[in-house]
Amino acid sequence: MTGWLVIAGLGPGDDALITPEVTQALAEATDVVGYAPYVRRVPGRRGLQRHETDNREELDRAQHALKMAHEGRRVVVVSSGDPGVFAMAAAVFEAVEGGPRSWRGLEIRVLPGITAMLAAAARVGAPLGHDFCAINLSDNLKPQALIEARLRHAVEADFAIALYNPRSKARPDGMSLALKLLRSICEPSRVVVFARAVSTPKEHLRVVRLADASPNMADMRTVVLIGSSATRIIERDGAPFVYTPRSVPE
Amino acid sequence: MTGWLVIAGLGPGDDALITPEVTQALAEATDVVGYAPYVRRVPGRRGLQRHETDNREELDRAQHALKMAHEGRRVVVVSSGDPGVFAMAAAVFEAVEGGPRSWRGLEIRVLPGITAMLAAAARVGAPLGHDFCAINLSDNLKPQALIEARLRHAVEADFAIALYNPRSKARPDGMSLALKLLRSICEPSRVVVFARAVSTPKEHLRVVRLADASPNMADMRTVVLIGSSATRIIERDGAPFVYTPRSVPE
Repeated sequence: MTGWLVIAGLGPGDDALITPEVTQALAEATDVVGYAPYVRRVPGRRGLQRHETDNREELDRAQHALKMAHEGRRVVVVSSGDPGVFAMAAAVFEAVEGGPRSWRGLEIRVLPGITAMLAAAARVGAPLGHDFCAINLSDNLKPQALIEARLRHAVEADFAIALYNPRSKARPDGMSLALKLLRSICEPSRVVVFARAVSTPKEHLRVVRLADASPNMADMRTVVLIGSSATRIIERDGAPFVYTPRSVPE
Repeated sequence: MTGWLVIAGLGPGDDALITPEVTQALAEATDVVGYAPYVRRVPGRRGLQRHETDNREELDRAQHALKMAHEGRRVVVVSSGDPGVFAMAAAVFEAVEGGPRSWRGLEIRVLPGITAMLAAAARVGAPLGHDFCAINLSDNLKPQALIEARLRHAVEADFAIALYNPRSKARPDGMSLALKLLRSICEPSRVVVFARAVSTPKEHLRVVRLADASPNMADMRTVVLIGSSATRIIERDGAPFVYTPRSVPE
C-alpha cells in the first residue's frame, strides 16, 4: 500500500461548506488526525481510525501523521477553515523540513477550505472587497510588539484587517491591546465586525463602530474584521450590510 | 414567487472545489449572471436562464441581477474564487447602496468560495501560514501610488503577500513596477511563487527567488505569492514545498 498525507480544510463549521475534494479524501483515508473537535466532525466508518489530539500540539500531531503516511497509511490531517491559514499545513511542512530525508519523498497534498474571515465576510456583505490582510492575534508564537507593528502598518496601508484568535483564556488581553491601538490611530466611526462561529448553530454576528467595540465581544471562536477607512454600512430592516468599495478615487 | 439574489464563488476552476452550498443555490436558480467564462462553467438545464456579460461591467451586471431578484426571480451572480475577494460581492453592495430603497429589503446572500491565493498556497505548501495580505495590482480602480504604498507597508510589516491581477493586456506594467519596488526593499533570495490557473488543465506553478523573478512569469490568470522574510523552500525530488513557519522568535 502506498501511503499519502493530505492536510484538509473542513471550513468554518457547516458541512455544506466542505469541498467535494475534501469529502473524497476523507472517504479514501485510513486515518484522520487533528484537534479533537475537528476530528469529531468527520463521520466514523469501518476502516477509519481517528486520532484526536489536544490543541497546541501541532508539531507532535504533524510528526505522527507523517510517520503513519510513511508506513503506508492514507492519512488526512484536518483543520477547521483553510489548513494554510493559521492552521495545520505550516506545522506539517515544519515537521517535514526537520524530519528524516525520506519524508520529503512522501505524497503530501494540501486541500484548501473556506477560511473563517471569508465565511464571516460573506455573512455580512463584502467587507474584504478591497485590499486586506490577516493577522493572528495570538502571542503564543510571536512577540506582542510584532503584532502591534503589523497592526500599525495595516492601518497605514488602509487595509481591511481580519484578526484571527483575538482572545482566549490563556491570552485575555490580545483583543483589548489591539482595540486600544486601533482607537489611537483610526477614526471612531471605523466599522468593526465580530463574527462568532459562522455557519454553526452558535453563529453570532455583531456590526459596531470602533468607538463602541469591546474586547468582550470576541472569544476564541470569533474572527474580527476591521474595515478600511472606506468600509461602509448599509442600514436596512434587519442586520445591516457591510462592504468595502472596489475603487479608491485618485 | 419570492425572488432572491445569491453571489456565489465557483472557486479557482476545478468543480471539486465548489462547495455543496453553491451547487445547491445553482440548482434552485432561475437565472445565472456573470462574466461569460464563469457563467459557462454552470451546466445548462431547463428553467435556467444564463446571462453572460463582458468583463469590467460589474456595476451594470449587479444592477441587472438586483432588478431580476426584485421581480421575483432566483438569481445567482457567479464569480470565480471567492465573490468577496476582488470579485462581484462588493459591486452588488455598491449597487444596493446606490439603488432604490426597495433593494435593501431583498434577500441577498454571499456564498464563499476558494479564492485563488488559497488554492495557489495549498498547491505549493503553506506560504501563507503566517500573517499575510492580499493586494489587487490592477490600477483600473485605484492610483498606482496607493498600490506602491501598500506594497511598502506590507513588506515593512513582513507579511507574506498575495498579488491578484498582476498583469493584463491593458496593464502590462503593474507586475514589473511591483517587482522593481520589491527588489529595492527585499533581499534577493525572497521566495516568489507564480501560480497560474490553479486546479485547471492550464495550471502552471513556478517557485523562484526574487532575483530571478520576471514580469513575464505572470499573466491575467496568475496569482503571485511573495513570501515574508521567513518563508522557506524545502528542496526535494520534484516540485519543492514552500512554507512560512508559524512562529517568529522574540
